[in-house]
Amino acid sequence: MPLETPPGYRPLNDGSLPDFLAELPEVARRLGGAASDWRVAEVGDGNLNLVFLVEGPGGGVCVKQALPYVRMVGESWPMPLERTLFEHECLREHGRHVGRLIPEIYHYDPALFAIVMERLEPHIIMRRGMIRGIRYPRSLFFTSDLAMPAAGKKRLMATFCGNTELCKITEDLIFSDPYRVHERNRWTAPQLDGIAAEFRADPALKLAVSRLKLRFLSAAEALIHGDLHTGSVMATESDTRVIDAEFAFYGPMGFDVGAMVANLLLNYFSQDGHATAADPRDSYQEWVLETVEQLWHRFAEKFLGLWRGHGVGDAYQAELFADAASLAALEGERQAYVRRLFADMLGFAAAKMIRRILGLAKVIDLEGIEDRDRRALCEMRCLRLARELMVGAAGYATIAGVTAAARELRRLGVERL
Amino acid sequence: MPLETPPGYRPLNDGSLPDFLAELPEVARRLGGAASDWRVAEVGDGNLNLVFLVEGPGGGVCVKQALPYVRMVGESWPMPLERTLFEHECLREHGRHVGRLIPEIYHYDPALFAIVMERLEPHIIMRRGMIRGIRYPRSLFFTSDLAMPAAGKKRLMATFCGNTELCKITEDLIFSDPYRVHERNRWTAPQLDGIAAEFRADPALKLAVSRLKLRFLSAAEALIHGDLHTGSVMATESDTRVIDAEFAFYGPMGFDVGAMVANLLLNYFSQDGHATAADPRDSYQEWVLETVEQLWHRFAEKFLGLWRGHGVGDAYQAELFADAASLAALEGERQAYVRRLFADMLGFAAAKMIRRILGLAKVIDLEGIEDRDRRALCEMRCLRLARELMVGAAGYATIAGVTAAARELRRLGVERL
Repeated sequence: MPLETPPGYRPLNDGSLPDFLAELPEVARRLGGAASDWRVAEVGDGNLNLVFLVEGPGGGVCVKQALPYVRMVGESWPMPLERTLFEHECLREHGRHVGRLIPEIYHYDPALFAIVMERLEPHIIMRRGMIRGIRYPRSLFFTSDLAMPAAGKKRLMATFCGNTELCKITEDLIFSDPYRVHERNRWTAPQLDGIAAEFRADPALKLAVSRLKLRFLSAAEALIHGDLHTGSVMATESDTRVIDAEFAFYGPMGFDVGAMVANLLLNYFSQDGHATAADPRDSYQEWVLETVEQLWHRFAEKFLGLWRGHGVGDAYQAELFADAASLAALEGERQAYVRRLFADMLGFAAAKMIRRILGLAKVIDLEGIEDRDRRALCEMRCLRLARELMVGAAGYATIAGVTAAARELRRLGVERL
Repeated sequence: MPLETPPGYRPLNDGSLPDFLAELPEVARRLGGAASDWRVAEVGDGNLNLVFLVEGPGGGVCVKQALPYVRMVGESWPMPLERTLFEHECLREHGRHVGRLIPEIYHYDPALFAIVMERLEPHIIMRRGMIRGIRYPRSLFFTSDLAMPAAGKKRLMATFCGNTELCKITEDLIFSDPYRVHERNRWTAPQLDGIAAEFRADPALKLAVSRLKLRFLSAAEALIHGDLHTGSVMATESDTRVIDAEFAFYGPMGFDVGAMVANLLLNYFSQDGHATAADPRDSYQEWVLETVEQLWHRFAEKFLGLWRGHGVGDAYQAELFADAASLAALEGERQAYVRRLFADMLGFAAAKMIRRILGLAKVIDLEGIEDRDRRALCEMRCLRLARELMVGAAGYATIAGVTAAARELRRLGVERL
């Protein structure tokens, strides 16, 4: 039995999409020619949605449409169409703060749960873009109590309180499954069977991830993207765009930043599974770690700069810190805030690393290593670092301490992991 | 020009109220006789609303109606009628957890923004009730992520995200005004002029109150009452009810508990302004401090017990803590959670003490001291303790440390404050 959908909804396809677009004058003009001239390709390789690229004589557009279920699993895992609504709302709000860091929206269709937006070309999905994505802190800062009056923030919050089913995917897949026996989990077996069992029996680790989950559930700090992995950033050498905002909600800022750091660290350890004598990866790996350091430093610097220049929200009211002594104290508090955010970020990064190895969804960086022993060795190093970061986040004063720990672990063979 | 109100709204009065109630069969039955037999008295002594007590041959009811402005100020301070909606929503939700600790609701009228509810008699508004109000932790625990699945909690949260104007009263009056020059502020002058200026120039204090405000704005821990002072508790020797929930929203639990502790500590210090040789208050003051200690100990004990027995929410999932070692670790985490809540509570208690002395709204305990020098001495002691608690909350390991500090301060004369 097909899942029930609201009246007016139908999944688009190559045949019906041109007719839909032809009725949107601005979009039709952009594509040029007649609907019969438009070439449609379904290119969605994500886990959830339909994604079409449409090419006309005059230009192209991208159409993203929600299916009433999780695409990678099928109708047995229903998922609300409204996620597109939340994505659209998030794009609208973040667009106000980051401008062209997200795709331009041409049309939102509330009945079809479809977004017609800028086709990004020649962008490719790539990690390099994550570094430029450094402008992304703007959306975190400007949707927080540091920049917004409470009433405006609560209005946005109320909207995103409805995005519970997408949040639940994160809650389950990231903060629960890797720490319990669950049919969704899979890992490189039998090599990782031992460490998976060890993690499931590790009280300190389970407390740490539960603490992070509580923050994910209750810390309404900013409108976060909620799924900021490598695949959510598209880039060219000169342009970077963040896509796929359907997981957006008011949550802890460290979750977004941690996601970026996690993906870089996963890539770092994965290189040892791809290196050959002819293609050593050491210098590339060093570049990845430098990138981790830069990412954090630039984020922190940018965030502090925004706060100094635009701290007009209801929290830490400028009016209270007008004299020199108070201003100096406030600057100290900003630094302390960013240190707290750093510890948060490390915890969330760790959670994201663990779930990519012991949970349902994988990253190609590691999955692409065909020799399972070799892959498991890379994964063990990731898991050891992640465990250390999650339980001991407070012990890391600097990002250099984190990259140093990563380097140390890379020296260890399987017998010492 | 009168404030605009939605169609169907009119402020009730002695004349129109019986006709309104006569159309509610259940209420009319409860009052008994005919509408012409019912005696109406407007008894609202709060700052915001109309409150009527209605007596009939068969029984009585209480009717609470919002005015489109703040009653104590007038039409120059408009305030949304929807606050009654939020109060009603909060009563519905809290009622599920605390049962008869709140008044029974007979009728909610969405057009008149009026709640018809149980008349509490022979209850009087009193502090003693705050101790029995100890069942109130149930409503905090059961609306938190420790007890609720995320989707249900977010639904409630979305509703209360709309209650921004009442929250803003708290944000301004408690977390901002006492720390800045503002026409709303008043205090015992000139005696407190110096300490008021000192507080406005105290960087550590302003940072501490700003940190608390950020928690108030962004820590969506539980559906809190939001205004749990002595006047929000009605009690007899055997029954206690919490009323006036229009400030309810998803916020930090420590705010409610802190409000109770603040009111007791204000009362403690105020006694020295009322004591005479014939009527010494020392033993009463000791009783107040014991009460503070009991209040916290019982709250903590009750909260921990609820968590142990009903921790079925999405945070700290029971499934992850099934083995003995994990259970023991979880118990340690619960204790740490309550210690964090304790520090939070002390900060919020301090904020509430300061605002009652340097801000707009006063407590009768201190206002009733006619000798202004004597009153100022009591108030200085309150302020010194509050400053110490807010800036140094982390240094207090136990509530006994707090009451000891209060006792110490009571020994100090004005020259040492």
